[in-house]
Amino acid sequence: MKKILMIPGPVEYDGDVLASMSIPTISHTSREFIEILQDALRNVKLIFGAPEDSLPYIISGSGTLAMEISVANFLKRDSKVLVVNTGYFGDRFAELISRFTKNIDVLKPGLGLAVDPEDVRDAASKKDYDLITVTHVDTSTGVRNDIKAIASALKDKNSLLVVDGVCSVGGESFDMKWGVDIAFTSSQKALGAPPGLAIGVVGKRGLERMERVDPLTYYSDLRKWLPVFKSALEGRASYFGTPNVNLIRALSVSLNSIKKEGMEKRIRRHEIVGDAIRSALNTIGLEMIPKSSYANTVSAVYLPKNVELQKFLSQAEENGVVLAGGLIEGISSKYFRIGHMGSVGPVEVLATISAVENSLKNNGARIEAGSGIAAAQQALQKLS
Amino acid sequence: MKKILMIPGPVEYDGDVLASMSIPTISHTSREFIEILQDALRNVKLIFGAPEDSLPYIISGSGTLAMEISVANFLKRDSKVLVVNTGYFGDRFAELISRFTKNIDVLKPGLGLAVDPEDVRDAASKKDYDLITVTHVDTSTGVRNDIKAIASALKDKNSLLVVDGVCSVGGESFDMKWGVDIAFTSSQKALGAPPGLAIGVVGKRGLERMERVDPLTYYSDLRKWLPVFKSALEGRASYFGTPNVNLIRALSVSLNSIKKEGMEKRIRRHEIVGDAIRSALNTIGLEMIPKSSYANTVSAVYLPKNVELQKFLSQAEENGVVLAGGLIEGISSKYFRIGHMGSVGPVEVLATISAVENSLKNNGARIEAGSGIAAAQQALQKLS
Amino acid sequence: MKKILMIPGPVEYDGDVLASMSIPTISHTSREFIEILQDALRNVKLIFGAPEDSLPYIISGSGTLAMEISVANFLKRDSKVLVVNTGYFGDRFAELISRFTKNIDVLKPGLGLAVDPEDVRDAASKKDYDLITVTHVDTSTGVRNDIKAIASALKDKNSLLVVDGVCSVGGESFDMKWGVDIAFTSSQKALGAPPGLAIGVVGKRGLERMERVDPLTYYSDLRKWLPVFKSALEGRASYFGTPNVNLIRALSVSLNSIKKEGMEKRIRRHEIVGDAIRSALNTIGLEMIPKSSYANTVSAVYLPKNVELQKFLSQAEENGVVLAGGLIEGISSKYFRIGHMGSVGPVEVLATISAVENSLKNNGARIEAGSGIAAAQQALQKLS
Amino acid sequence: MKKILMIPGPVEYDGDVLASMSIPTISHTSREFIEILQDALRNVKLIFGAPEDSLPYIISGSGTLAMEISVANFLKRDSKVLVVNTGYFGDRFAELISRFTKNIDVLKPGLGLAVDPEDVRDAASKKDYDLITVTHVDTSTGVRNDIKAIASALKDKNSLLVVDGVCSVGGESFDMKWGVDIAFTSSQKALGAPPGLAIGVVGKRGLERMERVDPLTYYSDLRKWLPVFKSALEGRASYFGTPNVNLIRALSVSLNSIKKEGMEKRIRRHEIVGDAIRSALNTIGLEMIPKSSYANTVSAVYLPKNVELQKFLSQAEENGVVLAGGLIEGISSKYFRIGHMGSVGPVEVLATISAVENSLKNNGARIEAGSGIAAAQQALQKLS
Repeated sequence: MKKILMIPGPVEYDGDVLASMSIPTISHTSREFIEILQDALRNVKLIFGAPEDSLPYIISGSGTLAMEISVANFLKRDSKVLVVNTGYFGDRFAELISRFTKNIDVLKPGLGLAVDPEDVRDAASKKDYDLITVTHVDTSTGVRNDIKAIASALKDKNSLLVVDGVCSVGGESFDMKWGVDIAFTSSQKALGAPPGLAIGVVGKRGLERMERVDPLTYYSDLRKWLPVFKSALEGRASYFGTPNVNLIRALSVSLNSIKKEGMEKRIRRHEIVGDAIRSALNTIGLEMIPKSSYANTVSAVYLPKNVELQKFLSQAEENGVVLAGGLIEGISSKYFRIGHMGSVGPVEVLATISAVENSLKNNGARIEAGSGIAAAQQALQKLS
Repeated sequence: MKKILMIPGPVEYDGDVLASMSIPTISHTSREFIEILQDALRNVKLIFGAPEDSLPYIISGSGTLAMEISVANFLKRDSKVLVVNTGYFGDRFAELISRFTKNIDVLKPGLGLAVDPEDVRDAASKKDYDLITVTHVDTSTGVRNDIKAIASALKDKNSLLVVDGVCSVGGESFDMKWGVDIAFTSSQKALGAPPGLAIGVVGKRGLERMERVDPLTYYSDLRKWLPVFKSALEGRASYFGTPNVNLIRALSVSLNSIKKEGMEKRIRRHEIVGDAIRSALNTIGLEMIPKSSYANTVSAVYLPKNVELQKFLSQAEENGVVLAGGLIEGISSKYFRIGHMGSVGPVEVLATISAVENSLKNNGARIEAGSGIAAAQQALQKLS
Repeated sequence: MKKILMIPGPVEYDGDVLASMSIPTISHTSREFIEILQDALRNVKLIFGAPEDSLPYIISGSGTLAMEISVANFLKRDSKVLVVNTGYFGDRFAELISRFTKNIDVLKPGLGLAVDPEDVRDAASKKDYDLITVTHVDTSTGVRNDIKAIASALKDKNSLLVVDGVCSVGGESFDMKWGVDIAFTSSQKALGAPPGLAIGVVGKRGLERMERVDPLTYYSDLRKWLPVFKSALEGRASYFGTPNVNLIRALSVSLNSIKKEGMEKRIRRHEIVGDAIRSALNTIGLEMIPKSSYANTVSAVYLPKNVELQKFLSQAEENGVVLAGGLIEGISSKYFRIGHMGSVGPVEVLATISAVENSLKNNGARIEAGSGIAAAQQALQKLS
Repeated sequence: MKKILMIPGPVEYDGDVLASMSIPTISHTSREFIEILQDALRNVKLIFGAPEDSLPYIISGSGTLAMEISVANFLKRDSKVLVVNTGYFGDRFAELISRFTKNIDVLKPGLGLAVDPEDVRDAASKKDYDLITVTHVDTSTGVRNDIKAIASALKDKNSLLVVDGVCSVGGESFDMKWGVDIAFTSSQKALGAPPGLAIGVVGKRGLERMERVDPLTYYSDLRKWLPVFKSALEGRASYFGTPNVNLIRALSVSLNSIKKEGMEKRIRRHEIVGDAIRSALNTIGLEMIPKSSYANTVSAVYLPKNVELQKFLSQAEENGVVLAGGLIEGISSKYFRIGHMGSVGPVEVLATISAVENSLKNNGARIEAGSGIAAAQQALQKLS
């Protein structure tokens, strides 16, 4: 019996992306590989909405490496940072940054709330932050911040705006040209390739800031890496560390399929899928962690009081759908998460809602089976 | 957006089966390959319920090759044959056999009906047939014949009983020891490997009959092939034609996963899946081609009168589910078919029913959306 | 330790060909598959040098199926056939044809000799053959017949010229427009895809002949299959038997890479490789089975008297090179065979010659180690 | 035409390792994945000769991440470090460490020389180093240091001995129980899996030291990662960053095949291969960078004076063998490198030597073609 992976990364990958992983590894300095890397980098810029004068990178590592890269290269020991925290990965941002500077302020809306862009503007007016970090979609809560509005609110500031796009880029509307200086993601979520790559873009202001910073780290030092990617963009090989040849090829296959679908259509598909899932969960009578600003890539959902998480997840898996538990301390066993990004469509949505319904019912929840499915079906009509 | 393949073969294959296809081809006479082939042949015998003294084969070709093999090796120019015809592949059986003998009688219950075993017994009492062929499940109609009862009804006869198990073996209860002399299938259906292999078993009476027959064909001449498979079962290499090394490896992976699941549990899963689909279709108000004897591997379903097949299939595909049209002349555009075999489970069932509901609705059918899903959900409960 | 496969099929396949095997199976009637099939069929025509008005086929089966296809569709019970026999597959041709007609003459030059085209002309002048079959390169002997000259010698005859190109098409110069009516090969040799596909082309005269023949076989009946491929060439799906979707995709990848290399360059590469191997074997002092007309795809080589075949092959395999034994009855343990086709180049040639040298030495043969390698190296210079 | 990758990583990987890369990504917290990870971690310990009380890790990243991990977790701002520098990666070690402490002494034998263990002992007697780093085999020079003797010379010291085993572990004799505290490698070299994983082991003394250090970095902070791997070793899932599921599966396949070959036999194979290559290069008349202590995994070889590197490499590639240029500043265009690790055997050695001979000849070097091959052939005899 087949199972589908509906956790917030890794997700279900396309067959040709997976098949390309098994093509024999070629030399990382060969013309063939440089062309693959160049193509991947160009598509990364495209998907991030990166300005012409920005530089992208694709480095072996998890999303946390990309997070480290996105701050370690831009911070001095006394830099002032504002962290907008809407979940577990906001906590991680603050913890990670604390390795580099202790001047950290945290703006933390209540659980389930997105930050009010005005609050970010206010904070930035009171202190001259070197860096302001925002998690676009926090994987742990499914809360989506309004990056466009935040960027707009910070238009006149010198602060660099760093966006964690791990759970958004490729699935949510996103455009660095809104005023984002540094953004990053990883391969295994909405970009549709297996885990293992830290991916990001540094804009012009970020590149300038880098020149005045001596990073304390080494593996995440962009001064070592960016020349390699600059070369690749120009079609030339250069070396710092051996790249993940097979995975970059797989990423390139996926990015090309994203380009072929078209960003607008892809974002729209994620919206409809997100709506369908929310509509179903709502009909079933489940409460979500986000109060109003919902991600289209991940949903965090409270369990009915009497339902035990592990039993719920096991039952869902017996129904063929692998879901994830919570990640917010204190309530991690009180809610579950559904990842719905990448090549997701009706098959995954309907199987998921049905598995949720079945598992709830089998765990004693009083729900009207089928009602969620019907709502999802209705919402998915917009796909055609 | 991912699509799932719910046609009656090829179907969705497991990831490790597919991945094994890309292992570099090894020599067909190497010890490693002989062990793979030996393992596959043993599992074929197991899954067919083949008696100890029978011989299995795995030959490059489609199911039609297996059909030719199963008659050409056992017929003389004047042999008498009874063909039990319950659909397109019954027609094919008769047409194919007519190349070898003209003494063919056809027992054809009305559309949607399985043959009455008593009718087979009666026919066999009136004429001394050399061969009686039955299609276990006709892929075109989803009608399932009762092989056990038929075999029992023929217990005292000299006729060889040949069973086309293409759409059944690995998904329906089947046991050559019921009294089946010759049986066959192909790789791409309930055995769970990509298309390209004709697979079958010849029992003792079949092997004896072969000695008195000079086949007119060559590629399908088992006297050429069986020594190769006999050798492989004994761990020795021998040659007639180059085997499909990669596909036999993939088949071996799939057969081992079938063995691991256990035949009883697997058949039960197919029953529950079949029930769920029928229950859903019934609730939606759709009529099936079979009147009473339903296959658990494929369903053939009439479209509501005003719904056009091609539009219906397109819409279903936009919902992520690839279905098949009809195959019975005269009504081929009046019904559609769902393949539900192999590693099929709730994910595929629910996605399929939902796609059917949506597509019907979008094509003007008056159906209560969600009702089918609810019925399927209910029936799938038995899986856990 | 890696081993390379230097037997006359299967051979070493390109990494992207193998990787493509694991892409999930798609519907055989989908637009995507029809495009892959169309592309493969067009490239088959290109590589065979097939005239515009000919029809190609790609059917699940081994080379022997293609052989049956190439005669069974064109013979009546009293047809007269001339078989040019230059080895094991000449024997097989005669045996196979004897299932369809008993009017068979065999033209069999001495072991190691190619047929003299004049002898074919003479034979064809004395009897009005319906079919004349020639094995381009007999895999068992490495003897290559001169198809161009034979076709020219038969220019005015009504006999259909059928060429077994299993061990030649894609590696040897070949062009149906020389006057070949029917030609075939299989996937696993010089076309560079795993085994499992019977591939061929029928020219206009063959298509006309078919209309006057009722084939006795069914699976190999082109009247059933050709409409499917004709449709595919026109971009439309149609059905007879389920095609080997994954393998046809792999074949398509390989054929495109052949097209990219260019037939002229590819044939030249096989010539240089063939020369290098022969030059090495000659320097080592080994005698080949062919007296003068050598294939560039396979070499059949006598072992020194005191060397035992199985020990020789084992030792070669310990040196990383898998070779094949003989196939001609009576002398099958007295010679070995090297397959050198597909993507073969210096790596394979040098490793092979070295393995041959080492294995001979370790088995007591008095040879000057290194001499063969030096000769091969010299000959391979022409590749650059 | 196939090419083989004979650079010092990535190398040629086994077909089943590559094929396993395309198995669909499973949840990183699933039982199935935890078992794969557990198995890989156990085999890492085995191959490193890691003591029972040590802890292994497998983290997405290149070898440079493993290098950072191996120092950043054990250094304070004022720690004293001795770097044994025998090439490019010795330079990198010093540069990387300088991010964490400025108290660095470098012991740098002349180019091509291994360090004298007595010199390490002397240095360690004069200053109480917190950390002493040694590159086992420097990929840039092919110089191999004698880790066993160095460890023995440091037996009584408190200094932690850190070994960069990137170009050795899995191919050279290595055993942490000699007295190595911290060791690391990456996936793409002698461990036989595609690039993308930083792999290492921390022994008891290292684990104790960690408790007294606050790392400045975050992604390379073992206090975050080790609990995850400790859990996995105990069969439980836990999370810090999303692991490279597909690549860890591939690594696991490769490590099991290493275990099956047996470490002793594997090391012996690398010795014979190394000998064969050196013997060939010596016969050809080429000078190597190492003066006496040669690695069995990589060879760095001076080009004859008149031969231009890029032309040499191109020609070698036309002969089917991809080689690497130099990496030591000042002489990087004066020498080339051959990687010979992993599943390397006669096929790769002979093809490589022949490509070197041919390319040298075509580039005007006066060498006796074939002499190198003969020498290699002779040396490879010991494999059987």
